[in-house]
This record gives sequence, structure tokens and C-alpha cells, in this order.
Amino acid sequence: MLRPMKEALGAATSWRVREVGDGNLNLVFIVESGGGSLVVKQALPYARVVGDSWPMSLDRTFFEFHALTRLEARDPGRLPKLLHFDEDQALLVMEYLHPHIILRKALAEDALFPQLGAHLGRYLARTLFRGSDLAMKTADRKSDLALFSRNVELTGITEDLFFTDPFMIHPRNRHTPGLEESARAAREDMDLKLAARTLKARFCSCAETLLHGDLHTGSIMVTETDSRVIDAEFAVYGPMGFDIGSLLGNFWLAFFAQRGHHAAGTAEQRGRWILHVVQTIWDVFVAEFSTLWHRERTGILGGREFFEDAQGLLGSNIALQQQLKEIWLDSLGFAGIEMHRRILGLAHAAELETIADEGQRAACERRALIMGRALAVNRASLPDIGSVNSLAADIDGL
Amino acid sequence: MLRPMKEALGAATSWRVREVGDGNLNLVFIVESGGGSLVVKQALPYARVVGDSWPMSLDRTFFEFHALTRLEARDPGRLPKLLHFDEDQALLVMEYLHPHIILRKALAEDALFPQLGAHLGRYLARTLFRGSDLAMKTADRKSDLALFSRNVELTGITEDLFFTDPFMIHPRNRHTPGLEESARAAREDMDLKLAARTLKARFCSCAETLLHGDLHTGSIMVTETDSRVIDAEFAVYGPMGFDIGSLLGNFWLAFFAQRGHHAAGTAEQRGRWILHVVQTIWDVFVAEFSTLWHRERTGILGGREFFEDAQGLLGSNIALQQQLKEIWLDSLGFAGIEMHRRILGLAHAAELETIADEGQRAACERRALIMGRALAVNRASLPDIGSVNSLAADIDGL
Repeated sequence: MLRPMKEALGAATSWRVREVGDGNLNLVFIVESGGGSLVVKQALPYARVVGDSWPMSLDRTFFEFHALTRLEARDPGRLPKLLHFDEDQALLVMEYLHPHIILRKALAEDALFPQLGAHLGRYLARTLFRGSDLAMKTADRKSDLALFSRNVELTGITEDLFFTDPFMIHPRNRHTPGLEESARAAREDMDLKLAARTLKARFCSCAETLLHGDLHTGSIMVTETDSRVIDAEFAVYGPMGFDIGSLLGNFWLAFFAQRGHHAAGTAEQRGRWILHVVQTIWDVFVAEFSTLWHRERTGILGGREFFEDAQGLLGSNIALQQQLKEIWLDSLGFAGIEMHRRILGLAHAAELETIADEGQRAACERRALIMGRALAVNRASLPDIGSVNSLAADIDGL
Repeated sequence: MLRPMKEALGAATSWRVREVGDGNLNLVFIVESGGGSLVVKQALPYARVVGDSWPMSLDRTFFEFHALTRLEARDPGRLPKLLHFDEDQALLVMEYLHPHIILRKALAEDALFPQLGAHLGRYLARTLFRGSDLAMKTADRKSDLALFSRNVELTGITEDLFFTDPFMIHPRNRHTPGLEESARAAREDMDLKLAARTLKARFCSCAETLLHGDLHTGSIMVTETDSRVIDAEFAVYGPMGFDIGSLLGNFWLAFFAQRGHHAAGTAEQRGRWILHVVQTIWDVFVAEFSTLWHRERTGILGGREFFEDAQGLLGSNIALQQQLKEIWLDSLGFAGIEMHRRILGLAHAAELETIADEGQRAACERRALIMGRALAVNRASLPDIGSVNSLAADIDGL
């Protein structure tokens, strides 16, 4: 571990070390010297945010290492550069991203990030396409499936916290005072729970591509010109729509939080910007996925032998639309579940949590839950990103 | 290896050994003595049916061993009893099933098997249910997913031979003279190829349960009172409908073969019996799956906390119907593909192959292909097993 750090920083006597201290699971240190800077991320044998009453094995660093190297190779430059991995110490040394800030904080504030949507749309298309049987050699894909299927502990957290807890009474759950009625309604909503069960089955059984697995606005760091994806320890093979839906769901949460942070005019301006980012993410995802479909469909699910090599492009283009439609429906469903678990479950969204006035926060969250339910239960009736953003605007009174 | 054989058979001097010699991949020996009998199955470093021009690794015996032990535990008594596994020699010693005969041969002849449908329906429900996240502990399920995802070579054979070859020009393909037009039509049928691609994606990505992976009428041995499932080396995690569809597809192939083997009255009587078996398999599958759903839904996809434990049975019953509908649609699709690959691809079905008159055989196969296309392309319009059997009867002029 010391050698790569010395290479980056110079003699250890000059290092300044500080703990970042805002991770849910791990210790994160920033180490700086006159010569440079880096981040050290180390797993603890328990979840940092809860303490040693929630024991957790150290091998999540192993999965983050493998996810980081793969995702970075699939969309170069979009993740922090890895400098060193020490499996025994459950420790990663990585590029220190600065002056980047966590997107979740940025969304509650006043900044705009003109390239954010394009960066994220391309990241989603490239990582999801290139980790699947559309592109990979099948033996490699199956070997990675086997590797990441060992990530049982963190995947189990997703299975419970995402798909189950928010729709039942559970000691891990919490919600803003005033939301009792909404929480009860979610628990008694059979259609919503049927949707949650169906989507949980998709998450557990549809081993389509390597997911980041926890792609929310707290896993993204931004500047005006750069966007980076961090914290890939939840990586697992799953359906493409999971990463997309998690991410869009968090943007819609941020959208509904705006009235809690800003006066009317500003809130609407910021809200429109967030919906614009969402629209851009989806549009760029579709464009990039379509480009990769035509250029890089070399895996066993390529189907080139049926279409391009035999009959021309029509069949290929229809198959692309079929695949995009499936991803679309999954994405909306997962977004709807994400919006519930961030309001009714254990892990909340800073965009909403930082609304000081509880009544105001509850009102924002109530609107977000209405949207989330529509996404989860009525997704088959929502044809495109414009119609979903219109739905959000209507619910918000934008 | 010798000790378990001696225990079953007595001193080696009294053994009589003969090779069965009808396997596609492996050597199979029957060893008998005054004291007992058993079967020795050994993998060769190539596919037996093709020869050493098709090299094949020996580890398929490893996967058969693991599949056999798991499937037998999930439906005890329905697979041959395992006596010994020698990984180094790629060799399994098993119960010798006698007077059982291969179902594929039996279906071309004159026998009836009154319990066959019930045995197979229960086998499908028990193995498919109990190998999934509906029932298994999630860490065990993921560990098995990892184990069987290493079965790359044999799974690759399915991916190619089942879903790809029959719909393109390929040197491995062969068909009965006179079927040129049907083969060309399949290759030029965009909707059929779109369906094949979608179903291949389901097979590759939907890691729902441990499949037998090659469940046709040549993988089943029967007497009037017993039915056994053999040859599980293609085992892999996949969608429940794959085993069901493969099996039903082979029964429908046998159905369309009857006019090639029997005079009008007998052919119709045998055809009706086969459709009756198909009906029984599906009905018993649904009944047994529903029973297990209510009694053994202890896995992370159980959802009991949403329904039985919170709101009563209604949600649970609707979720069961949703799951059965998905299995149904998959099953029909896979059956349709199976019916194509057994007529246009490499591995054919003895029920049809043994029709001596080529013109007669081609006529039977043409009808089977019409049925197979309807299953693959129009499955969403087929509500239940009765309607599908009626379709078969109409196509056959029954």
C-alpha cells in the first residue's frame, strides 16, 4: 500500500490525512501532500452508519475493486482512477476527486451542471451494454456472473431495504412526522406490493448485466465540466433498468424537494432544470445504446446472424426497440420503488432530509410518493420520458 | 470407484459389462452380476455422437453430479439413485433403471403410461420451485448460480443449437428431404427470429431456477408405473419455462409423428393420448406449483410479509397467477423453438426420425413446424393448455 501512495504523494512525513466521515458503510480518508492527493477507502467489519450492531464482512472492498475496474474500462474516465487495492486490509487507494462535490448536495443548492445528463446517459448505456451478453464473450460474462453472485451480503441489503421494508412495518424504517397516513397506505396497497414483488423478482433473477447497484445522486460527484461515479461495492448482475431507475428516481426525488428549499420562482426554475437533466439522461442513454447496438453487438445475444448478416437492418432495429421498451418499463418500476424506500425506509435522500420545516418536507415527500406509486403500478401506461416528466410536473403543480 | 461397485454387485469376477452405446455425449455401461446391477456413465474428451472433431471438456460429469443430487433432493425418487462420483475419471455410478425404456422410443410404439403426466408435472413443479428464490436460502441459491454458471460449454451448445442454428444456414443443420421450403421460410421469418432472440435472451439472462437443461423425451425413462429423469449434465440456472417448454415441445413433436407410424384410427387414438399427457403435465404442474407456493414460499421472493402476514391471501394468489402466466408464456415460446431445432437443426427427435417414408416424415414435420411457429410467435394469444392442444389437433386434422 505504501509504495503507490509514496509515488503519488512523496515522502510520508509530508502527508496530511483527514477523515471524510460521511460514508454509510466505510472509512474514507483524504491524504494530501505538496506532491499530490489521493483517497483511501477502507471497509470496517460493520456498517459505519449503524455501528458494530450491524456486522458486515470486509469483502465488499473486493467487489468494489472488481466493479471499479470493469465499469471504468466500459466508460473510461467516468470513475475515480484506482491506484491500489489491498485485499487483506480491505482497502482501496484512489484518485481524490476535487473540486468535485456530491451531486445530492449540489441538487439542493443553486448550481447547474450543463454536461451532467449527457455524462450519465452515456455512462449508463456504455456500462450496461458492455457488461451484457450483447457485447461480452459469454465465458467472460458467466465468469463475472459467478464472481459477483458471491456479493451476497450487499445484494441482500438491496433486496431487503429496496423491495421489502418500505412496504411493511419494520424497525429499520423511519419517515417524516406527518407521513403516517402515506406509510400506512403503502403498506396496505396490494397493487403497489405486487409491483414491488415483481420488480424484486426481476432484480434477483434477471442477471442481464453488471450493475453499479447503488447508483443514486449520492454516488455521483460533479464539477461544472466533469461527472464521476463512485461507490460501486453493491455491484451485481441484474437488469439494466435497475441502475437507470435508481438514478432517475433520485432525480425525481430531488425535483419534488425543490419547493422545500426555494421560493416559488426559483423552485420552479430548478425543478425544470432537474426534469431537463432527466430527459437528457434518458435521451442520451437511448442514443448511445442504439449506437453501441449497431457497432458492438458481438456477444451471443447479438443476433447479427439473424438480421444484418441475413436480411438487413429491419429486424435488428425492431429487436433494439423491444430491448429499449423492456429497459424502459423496468426503469420506471425501479424508480418508483426507489422513491418509496428513500422516504419510508432506512436510507433517506439528502435533498429531502435537509428541508428544515417538517410540514414542508412531508408535503414534498407526499407528492414524491404519489409519483413513485404511479411509476411502479402504472408504468405500462407511460410511453416516454416526456409523459413521465409531465406527470411529475402535474403532481408538483409546476 | 470399485468399493461401491463391489458393495452393489459382489466380487468383480462375476460382473458382466456391456456398453449401451446410444448416448450423444458419453460412454454408458451396464454392469450386472447375480447380486445386482448398476450403470457406469463416463465422459469422453469429445462428443461421442460426433467424435474427436468435437472436443469437449470432461467437467460435464461434475455438473451432472451436482445437478443430480440437487434435483433428486427436490423430487425424491424421480432420478436414478447415485452410487458414486469420481471427478478425476469423469465418471458416475448409478442405479440401473430396468425394465425402464426411453420415453422417446415408447412414444413411437404402442404403450400407454397412465402415471407419466402426473409424474412429470410434479417433477417440474418441485424442481423448478425448490431451486428458486421462492424457496431456497438466498446465499445457497447464489452459490449454486455461481457453480452452474461455470457450465459454459454445455450451456453454449444450448445457446447455439436451440436458439440460433435452426434459423440460419449452418453446416450442423440437416432436415428431411422435401423440407427445403420450410427451412428457407424459417430463415426468412423475421417475427420467428425476433421471438428466438427474445427467448434466447430469457434463457441467457433469467437465472430463476436450476434447470435440467435438456428435458426431452429422450431424457426420460419409463415403465407403466414409474418415470425417471436422466442426463442432467446441461443443468444451469435459467427460466422455469425452459424445462417445461422443452418437454412439452417434444410431446407435441411425438404427437405430429403419429400419422407416420400408425394407420388412421390408431394414429388418432395415440395422438389423443399424447395430448392428454400434455394436458396432465401442465395441470399437475399448476396444482403442485400452487401447493408449494402456499406451503414452501420461504425464500426472499416469498413475499409472505406483504400478503399472508399482512393482508390475507388475495395478493398472494394474484402473485401466483402472475408467476404462472409468465411461466406459461415462456413455456410456449421455448416449446416452439424446440420444435424447430429438432426438425431443422443438428439433434433430431427419434419419434420423427424413425418414420421410414421420407414424404410421410416431411409431411409430419411440416405440420409440427406450423405449430412451433404459432407457439413462438403467437404465444400471447394462447390462454391455456386446452387451446394449445386444440391448435395442435386442428393442424393435424385430428
